[in-house]
Amino acid sequence: MKKEASPQRSGCPINIALEIFGDRWSLLIVRDLMFKGHRTYKEFAESEEGIATNILADRLQRLETHGILASMPDPSDGRKTIYKLTPKGVDLAPVLVEMILWGVRHEKTAAPPKLVREIKENRERFITKIRKALDDIPKQTRQ
Amino acid sequence: MKKEASPQRSGCPINIALEIFGDRWSLLIVRDLMFKGHRTYKEFAESEEGIATNILADRLQRLETHGILASMPDPSDGRKTIYKLTPKGVDLAPVLVEMILWGVRHEKTAAPPKLVREIKENRERFITKIRKALDDIPKQTRQ
Repeated sequence: MKKEASPQRSGCPINIALEIFGDRWSLLIVRDLMFKGHRTYKEFAESEEGIATNILADRLQRLETHGILASMPDPSDGRKTIYKLTPKGVDLAPVLVEMILWGVRHEKTAAPPKLVREIKENRERFITKIRKALDDIPKQTRQ
Repeated sequence: MKKEASPQRSGCPINIALEIFGDRWSLLIVRDLMFKGHRTYKEFAESEEGIATNILADRLQRLETHGILASMPDPSDGRKTIYKLTPKGVDLAPVLVEMILWGVRHEKTAAPPKLVREIKENRERFITKIRKALDDIPKQTRQ
């Protein structure tokens, strides 16, 4: 398994973080799980950015290898696989929140103004809310 | 200029941020400018991760196109080019700081414990210190 065995290029924590999730498709999958409530391959594949299916399959595998997401049979249909963020994946929330703030500050984006206001008013409260919403997912049955 | 003209795949601020700096080499260059005081092509090329020179040249160009860094003649030797972060680049500090915190929390890294303690004790104070250090750079003459 090349991905697991390859030595890291340096011990710098930024480099190590980037070696794990430092490509845009990986973080877009994390975004879909974190903010959009996506849980299935089909949902990721249908995201607005149009990820290619071979890249999607590769990144899901890679994120699972690194313990950022976990896959499991869908409780409501055991033939289907669903994905969820692990605690290690949920801990990426502050990184993504800072990206949102940087994006809306410096680029023209389609971010909902209400969401941006909520983050700016109280960043920590927003992150706690996201964490709580993600914790609740396994308890829900999907309609 | 393809890089400037290509339409964004979506208006999501995370996607837009990732389209601009969402590859590991770009953020490692930003890291070198932000935390290591690197300013020259040679310094970037000698970073521990061993960036290939063609990738380095491409990413410097790309980061400059997007207004994250600026290049200028070295005041002490006009034949040389130096690079510095723009305010838009400096604003990536919170993103990188959150990556450091995630990396040291979930992976084995070589992050200096003193630095990690300083960030954890007061994240905002650390970011202010980084901003101030970067502001001071143009006033210094390089030895």
